Amino acid sequence: MRTSQFPLNTVKEIPADAVVVSHQLMLRAGLIRKLAAGLYTWLPLGLRILRKVEKITREEMEKVGGLEVLMPALQPAELWQETGRWEKYGPELARLKDRHDRDFCLGPTHEEIITDLARNELKSYKQLPVTYYQIQTKFRDEIRPRFGVMRSREFIMKDAYSFHLDQVSLQETYDAMYQAYTTIFNRFGLTFRAVVADSGSIGGAISHEFHVLADSGEDAIAFSTESAYAANIEKAEAIRPEGVRNLPTDELTLIDTPNQHSIEEISDFLSVPASQCLKTLIVKAEDDGLLALLLRGDYELNPIKAEKIAGIAVPLTFASDAEIIDACQCKPGSIGPIGLKIPIIADRSVMLLSDFVCGANQNDKHYAHVNWERDLPLPVHIEDLRTVVAGDPSPDGHGTLTIARGIEVGHIFQLGTKYSAAMKAGIINEAGKHQIMTMGCYGIGISRLVAAAIEQNNDERGIIWPTALAPFQVALCPMNMHKSDRLKEAAEQLYQDLLAAGIEVLFDDRKVRAGFMFSDMELIGIPHCIIIGDRGLDSQTVEYKARTSQDNEEVPLDNIISFLKEKLEA
Amino acid sequence: MRTSQFPLNTVKEIPADAVVVSHQLMLRAGLIRKLAAGLYTWLPLGLRILRKVEKITREEMEKVGGLEVLMPALQPAELWQETGRWEKYGPELARLKDRHDRDFCLGPTHEEIITDLARNELKSYKQLPVTYYQIQTKFRDEIRPRFGVMRSREFIMKDAYSFHLDQVSLQETYDAMYQAYTTIFNRFGLTFRAVVADSGSIGGAISHEFHVLADSGEDAIAFSTESAYAANIEKAEAIRPEGVRNLPTDELTLIDTPNQHSIEEISDFLSVPASQCLKTLIVKAEDDGLLALLLRGDYELNPIKAEKIAGIAVPLTFASDAEIIDACQCKPGSIGPIGLKIPIIADRSVMLLSDFVCGANQNDKHYAHVNWERDLPLPVHIEDLRTVVAGDPSPDGHGTLTIARGIEVGHIFQLGTKYSAAMKAGIINEAGKHQIMTMGCYGIGISRLVAAAIEQNNDERGIIWPTALAPFQVALCPMNMHKSDRLKEAAEQLYQDLLAAGIEVLFDDRKVRAGFMFSDMELIGIPHCIIIGDRGLDSQTVEYKARTSQDNEEVPLDNIISFLKEKLEA
Repeated sequence: MRTSQFPLNTVKEIPADAVVVSHQLMLRAGLIRKLAAGLYTWLPLGLRILRKVEKITREEMEKVGGLEVLMPALQPAELWQETGRWEKYGPELARLKDRHDRDFCLGPTHEEIITDLARNELKSYKQLPVTYYQIQTKFRDEIRPRFGVMRSREFIMKDAYSFHLDQVSLQETYDAMYQAYTTIFNRFGLTFRAVVADSGSIGGAISHEFHVLADSGEDAIAFSTESAYAANIEKAEAIRPEGVRNLPTDELTLIDTPNQHSIEEISDFLSVPASQCLKTLIVKAEDDGLLALLLRGDYELNPIKAEKIAGIAVPLTFASDAEIIDACQCKPGSIGPIGLKIPIIADRSVMLLSDFVCGANQNDKHYAHVNWERDLPLPVHIEDLRTVVAGDPSPDGHGTLTIARGIEVGHIFQLGTKYSAAMKAGIINEAGKHQIMTMGCYGIGISRLVAAAIEQNNDERGIIWPTALAPFQVALCPMNMHKSDRLKEAAEQLYQDLLAAGIEVLFDDRKVRAGFMFSDMELIGIPHCIIIGDRGLDSQTVEYKARTSQDNEEVPLDNIISFLKEKLEA
Repeated sequence: MRTSQFPLNTVKEIPADAVVVSHQLMLRAGLIRKLAAGLYTWLPLGLRILRKVEKITREEMEKVGGLEVLMPALQPAELWQETGRWEKYGPELARLKDRHDRDFCLGPTHEEIITDLARNELKSYKQLPVTYYQIQTKFRDEIRPRFGVMRSREFIMKDAYSFHLDQVSLQETYDAMYQAYTTIFNRFGLTFRAVVADSGSIGGAISHEFHVLADSGEDAIAFSTESAYAANIEKAEAIRPEGVRNLPTDELTLIDTPNQHSIEEISDFLSVPASQCLKTLIVKAEDDGLLALLLRGDYELNPIKAEKIAGIAVPLTFASDAEIIDACQCKPGSIGPIGLKIPIIADRSVMLLSDFVCGANQNDKHYAHVNWERDLPLPVHIEDLRTVVAGDPSPDGHGTLTIARGIEVGHIFQLGTKYSAAMKAGIINEAGKHQIMTMGCYGIGISRLVAAAIEQNNDERGIIWPTALAPFQVALCPMNMHKSDRLKEAAEQLYQDLLAAGIEVLFDDRKVRAGFMFSDMELIGIPHCIIIGDRGLDSQTVEYKARTSQDNEEVPLDNIISFLKEKLEA
C-alpha cells in the first residue's frame, strides 16, 4: 500500500479527553475517531489491525472445531425473561421498543440467543459436543464510557458457546479452548496470563480470565512466584494462616478514643500497628439482615468473596450510619465484636490475633489487649473474606504471591446448566431420555485487544506493534524521492519486490521531509523500517531500523528481502 | 470440510410463514434461522455464502480505491438533527435513549456519520477525491418484516461514500462505481440490470439501482427492446403520445350512471373501453390544497412522479371522501374536469382523448362524448403522471418498453451537497476558499443479495448456486462408504486431492443413504457433485453430476481434478 492511496490520519495533539496511553495513541495514530461518548469509528489503519485480531482468532476457533454463526444484535426481551436476566441485568443493558411497542435489547452477550438456537437445532446426543462462535458487534450502555475502545458502548467480541452431554465433555472443550486462547494470545505476540476468575453475571462454577499484562491495567492479578498459580485478585484465595496464636500478655482495657474512627486513626492514636487492630464492618444483606464482618486491620474486604458465602442473601451493601446506630446503639467507628448483637463472620486473618484493639460498642471507646477465648469466643463462622496482598502464601502451597496489573481480554466459563435448564434446552440421550445440555462460553474482546496491545507495547514515540498485529510489517521510506529519478525507480522496484515476497509493506510516497515520515511510521508503530536514499544507492545499500531500536543498520539492497524475512520469522 | 464436522441443518418441512421461495429454501437448506420477526441468525452454511458476497464486494471496492472503515451502528440524534432527517425519517428509524436519556438511533444508513467524519478529517482539496466504505450491520424497523432476509429488521450492507471538489470528480467516481457494481454482480454470476432510479429519501439528482432479475421481484423494471434504456418503473418516463386528436363525432351527453363509480364499472356499464374514459383522482398536498389529477382510464397513477412536480407541497395523499364531497359537492365516483373548482394537472395520455367519458360532478351522472376545446379547455398543466406499461415507446426513442421484475440489491446516488451543505462539510480549495464538498453514496444489500441470488437460481429440488457464491464448489458423495474399506480409502484420498487442488469441497462422510445425501446436496445447491462408489472403483471411475443437469457422467478417477477445474473455470 502507498500512503498516497492509503492516507494516514496521524495528528500531533494529545486529545484532551484521552487519559490512557492506548486511547491517546489510537487517536494520534489515526486508528479511531470518536463519534460520541463510547462510540468510535475505526479508520482504515485501525481496521487493518482489528481484522488481524479477528483473523487469528477465527483461525484458532476453526482449529478447535468451532462453527461460525452470526446472530442478531437486536434480541427480543422474551428470551431474557426466560433466564430472568431481563430483570437482573442493570442499566448497562441497552433496551428499546420496536414500533409495535415490543421490548428488545442490544445484546451485550448472546447466551439466551444461542441457547434458543441450540434447543431448536440440537435433538440428539449424537450432535454433541458442538461449539458455535461468532465475531460480532456488542453493546453495553456504560455509565461512564472511557479509555477509548477499552470501555466503549459498542465493541466487537468473539463469543463462543459449547453444548455438551455432560461435565466430562464440557471439561474437554473447556481445556481445548483454554489451549486455543493461549495459542491466540501467543500468536498476537503479547505477554499475558490466564488466571482463575470469578464468573460474575455470566454465571457458572469455573472460569478463567486472560489478561494482557500492562501497568495501566484495570485488574489486579495475583501470581505465585514459584508455581503456575494465577488468579484475579477478586478470586485469589487468602489461605488459613499458619502458626499458633500468642498467649495474652496484658489485661483487657477500655480506652477513650475521642474522634478516632478509622483503623488508621486508631493505629496512630494508640501507636499500635494496623495489623494489631480488628476491623469490624457492618453490611446489609438483600433480606435486610445486618452482618458484622471482622478482618485484621491492615487487610481489605473483598466484597466478591463475601457475597459468595453460602446462605448470604446477595447483594451485600454497607449498612448506613443510621442502620448501624439503630442496631448497635453506637456510631460506626467504635463497633467491635464484644457483646455485639448481630451475627459475625470473621476473616481467617483474625484467628491468630492476640492482644488486639477493637471497638468497644460505645461511642469513642475501644478495647485494647483483646484476646480470643479469654474476652470473647473465637468466631464460629470463619471465611476467606479479604483481598490477598503481595507476600501472601500462594494457595497452591508453592511460593508466595506477587501482584501485577492486567487488562482482561478473554474470559472462559463453565456455565453448566444455568441457561440450558432455565430455557429447557435439552436433547435425547443414549438412553432415550430428555436431558438438559451442559454449556460453556468463551469470549475475547476483539476491539479491546487492540487497545490492550498498545498499553503493553508503546514508548514516547508511539505504538510498537508485535509483527502479527502490525497494520503493515514493513515501512519503506524513501528520502527526498521527488528529487531523484534514480531513487524513485529504485524505491519503486524495492516496493514491488517486497510485495512480490509477500511482505505487507507501506510505501511512504508522500512528498514530506524524512523526519516527518519517520515520526509517522514510529507513531503508527510499524515494526520494521527500510530507509532508501540516493547516497545509499551509490553503494547499493539501504538502512534498516527496527521500531524497538534507536540504531540503523546498513543492509545491501540485494540482501534486504531475505534480511527482512528473517526478522519477520524471528 | 466434512459433514461430520460441519453439520448440515437441512429440514424437510416448508416453514409456514415463509411465502417466497428464497425464504423457504434458506430455512430448508439451513442457511438461516428466525430469532424473531425480521431477525435471523446466520448458520455456518449461510455465513459461508454471506462471506463470499462480502469478499467479492470488498475486492472490487479496493480496486476503485475505496478505504474501508467501520462506523458505529449506534448514532447520536444530534447529527440527524443537523440534516433534518431525525424529524423526517419515519418509524422505520429504530430510536432509543441511553441511560442518560440522550437520543440515539440504530443506523439504517450512515450519511450523517460519514459526513461528520469527513468534515473533521478532510481539510484540503489535495485530500480529494476520497471514497470510504464499510460492510456493516444496519437496522430498519420495518412495519411488516417479511421474505426472510430480503426485508428484515437487521441486515448487512456495504455502504460507500465519496467526497469531491466538484461534480466532474463526482461523476468520475460515480462512473467507476457503476462499473465496479457491474463487475461485482457479474462476478456473483447473476443476471441483473442497472436501471435509472428515483433517489427516494436518500436524496440527490441522479441515481441508479442494480436489480437481480427474478419473477418474484418486488420491483418492476422497464427495459427498451432495442436499446440500453432501463429504469425502475417508478422512474420510467411515459413520453408525450404521438399523433393528433380525433375530431368529435357526437354531442356531449349527460348520462345516468347509478352506482357506477370505478372506471371498470363505468366502462362495463357503458360498453366503452377503459382507454376511452377519463380518470379523475383528487389528492391532497401537504399544504392541504386539493388537486385533480387526470389520467386515461386504463393507466395507473405513479405517485412518485406526481410528487416530483415542481411547486407541489409533498407528500401527496388521496383526499378522503368527505374532503372530496366538501370541495366538489359530489361523491368521488362521479368527479370530472368539466366545471371542477380545484386545480387540474393532466397526464400526457389524456391529450389525445376524444369522445371520452368522464364524471359529471353530479352524483351518479357521467358525461359521454366529451371533447377538449369544444366542451372544456385542454388542461394547461400537463405532466408525466402515469406508470408505463409494456408496449409504451422507450423514452430514448429506440424500441418499446417491456416490463420485468427485479430485486433491488444495489443503489448508487449522486448526492451533490445535500448532506455536506447541511453539515457544513467543506475543505479549503485551490483558491484558498472554503468550499462545501460534493458527495456520492453507493450501497449493496449484502445479506439481501443471498436471498436474491436464490430467487433467481432455484428449482423444485432446491438452490442452484452460481459457483462464485456456492458455500462449497464441489460435493463429494461416497456411496455406502461405511461398508467398504477400499471405498473409504479412495474417497478419503480423493478428498485430500481435491483440497490440495484448492477446490472447496464438502465431503459427505455421514452414514446416510445415497439418496438422502444427494437430496441434501441438491437442496443446499452445491454446483458440482462427485459420486464415488465401490462399483466405479473397479473401473477406476467416478460419476459427475452438475446441479443443473439430471444426467450423470462417468469420469476416470485420474482425470477428475482437471475435469472439475475446467468446470469451475467455465
